[in-house]
Amino acid sequence: MSKLNDALKDTRRRVDEMLDKLLPVPTGLEKRVVEAMRYASIGGGKALRPFLLMMTASMFGVSKDDSVRVATALEMVHSYSLIHDDLPCMDDDDLRRGKPSCHKQFDEATAVLAGDGLLTRAFEILASEKTWMDPVVRCELVVALANAAGFHGMVGGQMMDLMAEADEEELSLPEIVRLQSMKTGRLLMFACEAGAILGQASFDERQALKTYASDLGLAFQITDDILDIEGSVEKVGKTLRKDVKANKATYVSVVGVDAAKAKAKELIAHAIDALTPFGERALPLKELALFILTRDH
Amino acid sequence: MSKLNDALKDTRRRVDEMLDKLLPVPTGLEKRVVEAMRYASIGGGKALRPFLLMMTASMFGVSKDDSVRVATALEMVHSYSLIHDDLPCMDDDDLRRGKPSCHKQFDEATAVLAGDGLLTRAFEILASEKTWMDPVVRCELVVALANAAGFHGMVGGQMMDLMAEADEEELSLPEIVRLQSMKTGRLLMFACEAGAILGQASFDERQALKTYASDLGLAFQITDDILDIEGSVEKVGKTLRKDVKANKATYVSVVGVDAAKAKAKELIAHAIDALTPFGERALPLKELALFILTRDH
Repeated sequence: MSKLNDALKDTRRRVDEMLDKLLPVPTGLEKRVVEAMRYASIGGGKALRPFLLMMTASMFGVSKDDSVRVATALEMVHSYSLIHDDLPCMDDDDLRRGKPSCHKQFDEATAVLAGDGLLTRAFEILASEKTWMDPVVRCELVVALANAAGFHGMVGGQMMDLMAEADEEELSLPEIVRLQSMKTGRLLMFACEAGAILGQASFDERQALKTYASDLGLAFQITDDILDIEGSVEKVGKTLRKDVKANKATYVSVVGVDAAKAKAKELIAHAIDALTPFGERALPLKELALFILTRDH
Repeated sequence: MSKLNDALKDTRRRVDEMLDKLLPVPTGLEKRVVEAMRYASIGGGKALRPFLLMMTASMFGVSKDDSVRVATALEMVHSYSLIHDDLPCMDDDDLRRGKPSCHKQFDEATAVLAGDGLLTRAFEILASEKTWMDPVVRCELVVALANAAGFHGMVGGQMMDLMAEADEEELSLPEIVRLQSMKTGRLLMFACEAGAILGQASFDERQALKTYASDLGLAFQITDDILDIEGSVEKVGKTLRKDVKANKATYVSVVGVDAAKAKAKELIAHAIDALTPFGERALPLKELALFILTRDH
């Protein structure tokens, strides 16, 4: 897996460079919000989503240099969602990516605005002619990202999560799967979708990637739930045992750790299977899928 | 002015119809966030920004039916900014558009998500082929809106405002003007800019409209400050005397009410002057400018 680790690190470095370039600190009083945007996005996390996007695009001959702006826009949206999810009125989390979460490091108002700023900037970048020449592709990216991030996707999933916590009744397994696919899965799917859009993939290729991303997303969520139970804070870099403390219904809490691990394994096998038509070209996506199964962070 | 009032009401009705269509309530647990998005956007406010956008577009022969989706996206972004600005960690306002603000009616978490959802949906609509055929135009709209709403514009302006409140030192007049032009002016300017983009206006026409919108924006802010002092809560529909209570530096607090009124008059005259090249076609924009001067809500 060290090859994959190197590739993830390389992606992180490229995305960080681009974030640095796309989020220049102004000189006026408003500079605080840009500092918060940078704090919450640069250097944090595994860059899974950008990696997935750039590797998918590269399967269709799109170079990393050509896809990195789109990947960076995606990372901005992911970072925005973490900032807002960590707010006291949401999941109230003080730790993120091994450091104080944005509202702890700055303050709540700045954190709300930093999230807003990152989301807005992401769309600006996707629609910019510096990102891609063909405006049809740019529009397709904006629509796909908005669909994944909005009330049909991430925003809706977070709302469901809050409702489920407030409600006394426990979610059923299909409801949990739907919630997670909206909250986490849709943005992971966008990563593959965007790669396919940039690469002008065929309908069949897109369908195959959709299957892969959908299975990967649920497996990712299951291993995330397991890490919440079995992981170490030092490695994971965020508050753990949250679900148990909140008595929250997760895939794992409903079916148990062993059955969940078996399910994750099955999903990853199915995800890898979906990549068969791409042959050798899909090697990085296969390695990523296997990494998801064995990750400790 | 009753003709203008009718035109504003007609715009409000068209935008509300479109909001109703573009924000369908889902059946799942996530429906609460869409209800909050609808609560905060449908039926509220004067629809100044959509009016400005649709009237500018119509000067170039673009029908209201063809511009209403773009106008609705703009209204979504305006509504999102009000929801987030009203949050307890921001301006902490319980009253908006004559009813409880979004976080009072729902809760803080739902309000944060509703704002996020509206902002995301707005970009989705601008980039959609249902909104406009030419993808170059759609990308131009996304970039222009993001620029007006992001850290160069509205988000940056709100950050400056919070910094100024926290800071002991008072802002200078040029700093106040810059803050207001970012916080309020840029989105009003986008209204005219979007009309010009849809209408494929020439460079000179765009410059003229920029001058108009910039002057209108500052005049709007000055009359807003004056309403905060002299207005009635029933008519204005939001908490008043806030600036005075917060000892906040505004254009009016620095130069005084009389000088501010004179400045607003001068700005409106200058704004109307900039419309000269458009002749008769600019009548609605002229009427709107005069309305800004005499408005009581």
